[in-house]
Amino acid sequence: MGRWKPGAEGRLMLSAMELYVERGFEQTTAAEIAERAGVTERTFFRYFADKREVLFGGASELQRIVLEAIEAAPTDESPVDAVFAGMFAGAERIGGNREWSCQRAALLAANPSLMERELLKLSALGEAAAGALRLRGVAALPARLAAHTGVSVFSIGFDTWVGDDPPGDFAECIRVALAELRELTAAP
Amino acid sequence: MGRWKPGAEGRLMLSAMELYVERGFEQTTAAEIAERAGVTERTFFRYFADKREVLFGGASELQRIVLEAIEAAPTDESPVDAVFAGMFAGAERIGGNREWSCQRAALLAANPSLMERELLKLSALGEAAAGALRLRGVAALPARLAAHTGVSVFSIGFDTWVGDDPPGDFAECIRVALAELRELTAAP
Repeated sequence: MGRWKPGAEGRLMLSAMELYVERGFEQTTAAEIAERAGVTERTFFRYFADKREVLFGGASELQRIVLEAIEAAPTDESPVDAVFAGMFAGAERIGGNREWSCQRAALLAANPSLMERELLKLSALGEAAAGALRLRGVAALPARLAAHTGVSVFSIGFDTWVGDDPPGDFAECIRVALAELRELTAAP
Repeated sequence: MGRWKPGAEGRLMLSAMELYVERGFEQTTAAEIAERAGVTERTFFRYFADKREVLFGGASELQRIVLEAIEAAPTDESPVDAVFAGMFAGAERIGGNREWSCQRAALLAANPSLMERELLKLSALGEAAAGALRLRGVAALPARLAAHTGVSVFSIGFDTWVGDDPPGDFAECIRVALAELRELTAAP
């Protein structure tokens, strides 16, 4: 989910992506990924539970970064602004490697089992962000609404960014989507 | 996902839910569900691809109802209002059986593989609703934002409704959540 990790873990992520693109996700085994990365299969499974997880290696780090930014937001900031402080911090983490993100997005679109895993992780990120808002004194319903809206805009901004004609970097795609959402939901 | 279907399909859904609650989802087989419903295992698989799908029997019908309501919304209605015409139509379809919905929600919360399936279906509902907005002339980005926001509010409204102290029926829970979201996203 973004920037390279050093050492065996990073090589495994790169090798996995190469093989998934060359042969397809279903046709690639953990053993083949390990071989290309120049490590043993045992090493593969020290870092990743299965070959799906190679594509989600950065998910827990992303969540940590998002939550830290929500916690660090000024106490008088609105729930939505605090959530987006988290989303922009997350975008900065992921936004450095558009090529990897594009390949990953194409793989997810082609493999429902990967998309299911992605949606579960995004939903968990939303619940965690709602928890971080609760700690700031936000009530349960607005916390969940703000958090899941944040994740939804993050995700749609991501799709714009890896699409054909992004208006700027990942953060800018999120900004554009948020401005559009505010206009759409402005009370009639 | 809601109101009873007549005949074998409805009996299979009821029997499955009884067994999932009694024994747990993982511990229940399609054969046992068929036996309790008084039909053959072959009949089970005529209606459902696997034992997960029994809990999603109404998903395609829900999607049809949502899309029809979006299509039927007055042409001058805003994208968000059109989407929520769809969501309220969906809520009417599901809202008749709170007990089933509560049991289903508890099962999903306890089984990540079911939750993954649910999130994939909700995401597909969002994409389909976005498609229906596109047909109304809404541009791609606002269509996706409005549609996924609609699904998100629908889903959070659902959680409120099956929770401990809902403020009213399913539709009312959606209305409360939508009003809250409009307040949260009002431009600063």
